[in-house]
Amino acid sequence: MWVPSSLVKLVETLKKLPGVGTRTAERLAFFLLREPGVLEDLEQALHEAREQLTFCSVCHGITERGQDPCPLCTDPGRNTRQLCVVERPQDVFLLERLGVFQGRYHVLGGALSPVDGIGPEDLHLQDLRQRVQQEGIQEVILALNPTVEGDATAHYVQTMLQDLPVKVTRIARGLPAGADLSFSDITTLRDAFEGRTEFS
Amino acid sequence: MWVPSSLVKLVETLKKLPGVGTRTAERLAFFLLREPGVLEDLEQALHEAREQLTFCSVCHGITERGQDPCPLCTDPGRNTRQLCVVERPQDVFLLERLGVFQGRYHVLGGALSPVDGIGPEDLHLQDLRQRVQQEGIQEVILALNPTVEGDATAHYVQTMLQDLPVKVTRIARGLPAGADLSFSDITTLRDAFEGRTEFS
Repeated sequence: MWVPSSLVKLVETLKKLPGVGTRTAERLAFFLLREPGVLEDLEQALHEAREQLTFCSVCHGITERGQDPCPLCTDPGRNTRQLCVVERPQDVFLLERLGVFQGRYHVLGGALSPVDGIGPEDLHLQDLRQRVQQEGIQEVILALNPTVEGDATAHYVQTMLQDLPVKVTRIARGLPAGADLSFSDITTLRDAFEGRTEFS
Repeated sequence: MWVPSSLVKLVETLKKLPGVGTRTAERLAFFLLREPGVLEDLEQALHEAREQLTFCSVCHGITERGQDPCPLCTDPGRNTRQLCVVERPQDVFLLERLGVFQGRYHVLGGALSPVDGIGPEDLHLQDLRQRVQQEGIQEVILALNPTVEGDATAHYVQTMLQDLPVKVTRIARGLPAGADLSFSDITTLRDAFEGRTEFS
């Protein structure tokens, strides 16, 4: 049967998105063909994202080209003694939006997961230690997901930093076990920040 | 709070897609930033779709630039006496994939819906009549969705063609009422094609 190759390519590419199967990809493709304005906007937004967005060389969060270190790393109004360690770049924006933390961030880029082949060398762990030493950090707050991987990562960081004069804390498990940080409500998250306990 | 403007734009644009809310848009955006290959592929696929895909001037289905009329309209191997009328371009590909029809197609571009302000002038109805006359069509098969709008459209087409020497049939309602063509299985669709009855 005949199908325009550009249409096949569009559907196949949309299927690479998480949670998008064949039917959803087709629905999206035909929606875009019916709405050329959205098609063009999306193409442009993707292009701009590809051109403009990059990772901060200090915290490994997302920033724009020409803003490295990112504004969160250079803002003199933030608490420079507290460093919040998160798994993913989006966790930074989540915490910023909820306003539960006023210090600086460090994005690991994931969590330890032997099953998925993710070891310490795949995460931004080495320079976390360097930052703690060089920036005079007094408290490292682990805001990792309450999962097996998050737990393993927390233990790794605690062990890695134990010879340094820094307090390592972890946000309280007001979060239901097995949940995902980005699906937590503000009350749960604020409770978790306030109820943090020394990690040992 | 600070968020890179290109990221905000990407999320806002993704939210224009059907079925995509804020959380899904954010998830997709961060997935794309983590997978720059997919980001680039998607940008390219959208660009190619915008450059290459257009509508066939005969059947109003989707075709590529430089292929107008589309291959389905010009294929000499197809039955030129039967014309299958569908609501949307994607219905053509659905029927082609299932192989239940070997004639030609005519895409109306929707169905009559006074509630949504869609009248006969918004659909490709005028040239449907012309095609039936000029192409010597012997049977018009209405493969419209079994909905109020599909029914109204079927009646409209039947009335519009009643002075012409053409048989107007409609695929049988093996389809459950209120359903959508693209969610039907092949058995239901084949039954519906085989069980079609004269429309009057």
